[in-house]
Amino acid sequence: MSEHAQDPRRRTRPIQRLEALSDGVFAVAITLLVLDLTVPATAHSERHLLAAIADQWPGYLGYVVSFSTVGALWLGHNAITDYLDRADTTILRLNLLVLLLISFLPFPTRLVADYVTKSGAERVAVTIYGLTLLISVAVLSLLWRYALHAQLIRPDADDEEVSLLAKRLSPGLGGYLVLVVVGLFVPIVAVVGYFLIALYLLIPLHLIRFVRARLSRPRA
Amino acid sequence: MSEHAQDPRRRTRPIQRLEALSDGVFAVAITLLVLDLTVPATAHSERHLLAAIADQWPGYLGYVVSFSTVGALWLGHNAITDYLDRADTTILRLNLLVLLLISFLPFPTRLVADYVTKSGAERVAVTIYGLTLLISVAVLSLLWRYALHAQLIRPDADDEEVSLLAKRLSPGLGGYLVLVVVGLFVPIVAVVGYFLIALYLLIPLHLIRFVRARLSRPRA
Amino acid sequence: MSEHAQDPRRRTRPIQRLEALSDGVFAVAITLLVLDLTVPATAHSERHLLAAIADQWPGYLGYVVSFSTVGALWLGHNAITDYLDRADTTILRLNLLVLLLISFLPFPTRLVADYVTKSGAERVAVTIYGLTLLISVAVLSLLWRYALHAQLIRPDADDEEVSLLAKRLSPGLGGYLVLVVVGLFVPIVAVVGYFLIALYLLIPLHLIRFVRARLSRPRA
Amino acid sequence: MSEHAQDPRRRTRPIQRLEALSDGVFAVAITLLVLDLTVPATAHSERHLLAAIADQWPGYLGYVVSFSTVGALWLGHNAITDYLDRADTTILRLNLLVLLLISFLPFPTRLVADYVTKSGAERVAVTIYGLTLLISVAVLSLLWRYALHAQLIRPDADDEEVSLLAKRLSPGLGGYLVLVVVGLFVPIVAVVGYFLIALYLLIPLHLIRFVRARLSRPRA
Repeated sequence: MSEHAQDPRRRTRPIQRLEALSDGVFAVAITLLVLDLTVPATAHSERHLLAAIADQWPGYLGYVVSFSTVGALWLGHNAITDYLDRADTTILRLNLLVLLLISFLPFPTRLVADYVTKSGAERVAVTIYGLTLLISVAVLSLLWRYALHAQLIRPDADDEEVSLLAKRLSPGLGGYLVLVVVGLFVPIVAVVGYFLIALYLLIPLHLIRFVRARLSRPRA
Repeated sequence: MSEHAQDPRRRTRPIQRLEALSDGVFAVAITLLVLDLTVPATAHSERHLLAAIADQWPGYLGYVVSFSTVGALWLGHNAITDYLDRADTTILRLNLLVLLLISFLPFPTRLVADYVTKSGAERVAVTIYGLTLLISVAVLSLLWRYALHAQLIRPDADDEEVSLLAKRLSPGLGGYLVLVVVGLFVPIVAVVGYFLIALYLLIPLHLIRFVRARLSRPRA
Repeated sequence: MSEHAQDPRRRTRPIQRLEALSDGVFAVAITLLVLDLTVPATAHSERHLLAAIADQWPGYLGYVVSFSTVGALWLGHNAITDYLDRADTTILRLNLLVLLLISFLPFPTRLVADYVTKSGAERVAVTIYGLTLLISVAVLSLLWRYALHAQLIRPDADDEEVSLLAKRLSPGLGGYLVLVVVGLFVPIVAVVGYFLIALYLLIPLHLIRFVRARLSRPRA
Repeated sequence: MSEHAQDPRRRTRPIQRLEALSDGVFAVAITLLVLDLTVPATAHSERHLLAAIADQWPGYLGYVVSFSTVGALWLGHNAITDYLDRADTTILRLNLLVLLLISFLPFPTRLVADYVTKSGAERVAVTIYGLTLLISVAVLSLLWRYALHAQLIRPDADDEEVSLLAKRLSPGLGGYLVLVVVGLFVPIVAVVGYFLIALYLLIPLHLIRFVRARLSRPRA
């Protein structure tokens, strides 16, 4: 064990495989979502096809919301492993639990896409979706707290940065909790909420400023 | 060949690709399982949808059991490659055999999910499932024994740790062997057994202690 | 942050995960395309089977065009990350946007394969396909411009090489824009255009010269 | 370009991404094959289920043959990249062509599985399958020859090893060529031939000797 600590390659290797498996699951889960977008079967004119595609808006909505959410969870996961100095088997297991939830997400996504327009059952679909997001963020947050507790983070990590990361994970947790409750009463508001969180996470203000600057000046 | 030994990058590269392909197959196999969870087609009320989702419990059970088992096999695979110093083509081939079994697992998972509730045929499904798990662990164990035999492990590896790993792989082997036999007589007991092994592997006692400690004290 | 700059492993790690997730999504998207090639169901003779397979030419066309286009986008992505020195969260997010578009591509591919032979609706399918390619290249181009603007590229990068890369991304953008417009009037010409761009990107003149040289001389 | 040569990280990075994308495509293609194994729908007794599963033997055969062949191609790919010192865009493109063929393989696999038992059309299916394998090995072989020609291999590579690798790729090429021709006359012999090549590639004599040694002696 003492020998272990000396060899940097041995210490970081389990982290590399944790990252590789995670990136694989994130990539597959994110890409499988497209399989649920079905091509309209029998459209004989342009109007019909456009109308049939437009009718599938819940599918596209679910696709974008879930993709963005998985993307945001990946950003959080990324920030965490960036601070990891070594990995013990508990963190590998906790990570598997995170991946179980990520890989499960395509199912509630399909559920919402199929039921969001059917009043009477949309509440069930939206609640299951929200709970999956909530638990995913909760387990990711637990993974980070465990890493801190078990002193698995780099000794040179900035205390400020570390507490900042904890704070960044918490509002997601709070936001999803509120939206799950809201969804019990007004499901569509919760879906819009998940969409707005997703948009906010995917399109940072930083970038908008950059694009605006480029558009006003011809060449940077 | 002697030159080969001098260059550390050349020596470890085949291990890195072995790990990359394996992590890819593990990630895809683990994530494909979700495709077998189908969204109930025509639920007109909340009750109907909840009932339809609840009716699919064998699907969720199969999902969690198989995910956890693949996860546990990944932990074992991880522990093995952690000790590897170099890879020969035999170990690359043995590893392909492990991956063949891992990638096959979604099929018996679907079989169990479809037949576990149908008395008369559930024994066949459960036995095929169990045999797949048993052979997977057996081949993984063979891979480890071969690595030891062919002296592919790091020279600085602790003898104690090495024999510990061999021991960790063996009870899985024994447990699956017993459950396959039990499944021939009482299939449902074997399924519960696979589930308990999976739960035990995924949720370590270590973590439970940590969560309990966190809950009793407000801040760590 | 200043400490950050000192540690090269910390600086390059986010790039490595960006690359890993991207390679995963590229690999899955590229491979999922094959799922849309269906095996003809009831061919009783060789002639029937050959005819049925030949009838599916739009599927193979879509497969090759989309595979090549994703491949070309990967080449561009590759060239960009090759110059990256560090990654900020904006570039990670922009990259997620690129991946969203890549992972979406199998859907318009199916759309084109299903509708390219049905006059009346093929224009809609081809336009959606072209817009997806156009936006993908535009976002990839934006990512590169942002990386330049935010000074995320290696300080030792050759100015000439850098401006060459910007130029290499631009004609793709222009070509797709022209083809989207052309597709509004003559859809089949746009499809052939996407195919030619794809062929050009996949089979470089360089290689043709090499093969020709090999064929004229018996042994190199 | 001269600067380029100095920085080892820059030189090897494109190879790493080439490997990462390839491992991803190999992993996904290999794992997607399982989706074609369908669970028998309505088996009411053990006998029925066993019979229904046994009836699907062409599916399992196709699964094992294709998995092993992809695995063998991965071994060859692995051996090639092991010698690569740097990557130019031609080799990246040639590699994409290899991946196009690998990712396509699930389609002819399904074709063979569906038609191998239907006399009258099995010849078409088997020939398409064989041609895909043949072209895959041919392109992989071309990639290796190009790497030699363009001097992309490590300067310290052993000449003997290099010519050995070329030889290892050639018999595969010859074997598949013979089997494609044989398949035009006796399709089932070609399938058995592909199966035997696959078995030979996956289960090395080396390992059999090791297992036999273990069985004769109780403990190594």
